[in-house]
Amino acid sequence: MDISAYMQSLGRQARAAGRVLASADSAQKNAALDAIATALESARAALAEANAKDLAAGRAKGLDEAMLDRLALTAARIDGMIEGLRQVSALPDPVGEITDMSFRPSGIQLGKMRVPLGVIGIIYESRPNVTIDAASLCLKSGNATILRGGSEAIHSNTAIAACIAAGLAQAGLPAGCVQVVETTDRAAVAELITLSEYVDVIVPRGGKSLIERISRDARVPVLKHLDGICHVYIDDSADMDKAFAIAVNAKTHRYGVCNAMETLLVNQGVAFEILPRLAEAYSAKGVELRGCEKTRAVIDALPATEEDWGTEYLAPVLSIRVVDDMAAAIDHIETYSSRHTDVIVTEDYSRAHQFLRQVDSSSVMVNASSRFADGFEYGLGAEIGISTDKLHARGPVGLEGLTSQKWIVFGTGQIRR
Amino acid sequence: MDISAYMQSLGRQARAAGRVLASADSAQKNAALDAIATALESARAALAEANAKDLAAGRAKGLDEAMLDRLALTAARIDGMIEGLRQVSALPDPVGEITDMSFRPSGIQLGKMRVPLGVIGIIYESRPNVTIDAASLCLKSGNATILRGGSEAIHSNTAIAACIAAGLAQAGLPAGCVQVVETTDRAAVAELITLSEYVDVIVPRGGKSLIERISRDARVPVLKHLDGICHVYIDDSADMDKAFAIAVNAKTHRYGVCNAMETLLVNQGVAFEILPRLAEAYSAKGVELRGCEKTRAVIDALPATEEDWGTEYLAPVLSIRVVDDMAAAIDHIETYSSRHTDVIVTEDYSRAHQFLRQVDSSSVMVNASSRFADGFEYGLGAEIGISTDKLHARGPVGLEGLTSQKWIVFGTGQIRR
Repeated sequence: MDISAYMQSLGRQARAAGRVLASADSAQKNAALDAIATALESARAALAEANAKDLAAGRAKGLDEAMLDRLALTAARIDGMIEGLRQVSALPDPVGEITDMSFRPSGIQLGKMRVPLGVIGIIYESRPNVTIDAASLCLKSGNATILRGGSEAIHSNTAIAACIAAGLAQAGLPAGCVQVVETTDRAAVAELITLSEYVDVIVPRGGKSLIERISRDARVPVLKHLDGICHVYIDDSADMDKAFAIAVNAKTHRYGVCNAMETLLVNQGVAFEILPRLAEAYSAKGVELRGCEKTRAVIDALPATEEDWGTEYLAPVLSIRVVDDMAAAIDHIETYSSRHTDVIVTEDYSRAHQFLRQVDSSSVMVNASSRFADGFEYGLGAEIGISTDKLHARGPVGLEGLTSQKWIVFGTGQIRR
Repeated sequence: MDISAYMQSLGRQARAAGRVLASADSAQKNAALDAIATALESARAALAEANAKDLAAGRAKGLDEAMLDRLALTAARIDGMIEGLRQVSALPDPVGEITDMSFRPSGIQLGKMRVPLGVIGIIYESRPNVTIDAASLCLKSGNATILRGGSEAIHSNTAIAACIAAGLAQAGLPAGCVQVVETTDRAAVAELITLSEYVDVIVPRGGKSLIERISRDARVPVLKHLDGICHVYIDDSADMDKAFAIAVNAKTHRYGVCNAMETLLVNQGVAFEILPRLAEAYSAKGVELRGCEKTRAVIDALPATEEDWGTEYLAPVLSIRVVDDMAAAIDHIETYSSRHTDVIVTEDYSRAHQFLRQVDSSSVMVNASSRFADGFEYGLGAEIGISTDKLHARGPVGLEGLTSQKWIVFGTGQIRR
């Protein structure tokens, strides 16, 4: 197979389908989403069969339990895909929205119209349900999608793609609206991330090494986050009960997620008061603590190194640093944060506002758990991923992040003098 | 000189200065802009002397008249720089704006805060006044700047930089807020566009080959437009007087600009009526016409080729194509447009709205000259450039385009259940 020609062909079809989809009304897009959900419901047996093939091949290849678990298309996960489609269908459609229309002194009426980005390339590993999650958000926001899943899920993803194709056809939308890359050849990824003529943005979903590789080699813009090194800073003005609840929740609510706290910063004025209480709670949950020297003067912990401050554990491990004051906390955050989510616990009005202003992360919070940095919690109704870059979209990316605004002008014959 | 170490050092200083500038209030930033204007006024003799050195060196190197003209810092241009600074100072400050604050079901209060991108690298050729134009917009929007001008303007730019430094000092802002790259070594550019750790966006200002080179090699995001291949489509429902005025203005108001029309599309139903009238006006202004076969059946023109449809002339040359209908016009535009600005002249309501919806350019207009695609005409009060990319900013980019929005949360102790 000529991979380059194949990918160019997918690109051309996606671009053409995207033009149709960009002008499709909400009713038609929702009809497609609902039809896809129905197709999935009818295809449960076929999906299970395809998934069984992938699981058998995975076991034979020696994939570990965690990976096999991510690969499995259980009945509950199929339920989740169907429910997710219904939810996205019910979301307001941002496409075509016109805002800020006003008359300029020249007499032209100027405004902004929200439009799809165009064609989105999704590159993902393991979890077959991402096929539906990502495709549904792209479809609703008027974008054509090219999906490249993990080779270990090729049969599952192909079966899901068949349901998507059926749904699109039923709604009268071109098949090119959602295409799945049919070859597992790695060269297809290299082509996709450099297909600038036809692809407007790449969204990688998976482990850090996948995202690093793609970001390094892509010529197409990438919407991504590399790390979730999130901080909670307990100020000496903090309410200790809030501090306790937030610090425990931000670390232990879930471990393997990007918005979990990885480093706790504590003002020296309250270290003696709050750290023993927290240490007890963390130990009860089996969290390994690594602390700076001042931390270890108060509680038992392994020594924390420079490397710890820059590590996303995604595990029951927490690094702790005692800092002199908020300025020192902000310095630490600006040095080590991955610009994902950072939190201050304080009852001081001025410090709360300074922290919000000075910390340059995609989400900055006062007195709330970092675990709230999530598309559903933010009311986006959906989330294609989280961006820690600064351009275009920051933080949880929903439908709006998959669109851009163009300028539109209603004139009555105006010319420049 | 170790270029890499030098550029890393500029980057570190910019990043540090940017943190201070991001929290600076409007009064302080405006004081800096006003102080820079005052410094320029006092330094007119020194600026003229430095510029004379550059012009002498330029003549000795054989620069042509057009290039020497761009290089010249006339009294009028210095007036322009000073006036520009006063205007930017008077603009509303977008930094720190909080919008969309609302309570989520979880009880957190969620909103968006507008913040500077951080550090902006400006790479430009020839015109020394860009030093001030670009630096003033970056400063006002809270961004630190690293300026790399053309080697032919090194003395002029250095003299301007001294005025900027004086202004910053007077306002109590760190010198790192605006830094000029002091070496003319080309390696400095290669370093700047890959300095991802310290630079958030690159804005290239200059010819197409400069912008192409930078876009190709940059690892830092680039805000740019490559081409301004703009269209005016005259529909058969158009008011012929509006069509005439717009088609003449869009081509001939100014030639060497990105928002000038380069291809005129005419509905076959009105070709006989409008083309002769336009041809007469264009010929009177010395515009060379290149047309498709159907065009040449109506007026005198050179034959237009496929290459003409994809050419930005930046000169008194216009390509003309007669099309069957609006769908054909949109097909042509979607094929050849550089996604800058495209216009329809029509009195048909449905077609006007379809054109606005279906044409995927940064500015789409009904019954107005493409020459309105400009930051000042759009009311941005300033323009650092025009973007034809789809992410982050589209069309004229003003202060807002040099910022992004982060999420902020006011909580009262909420945790995830």
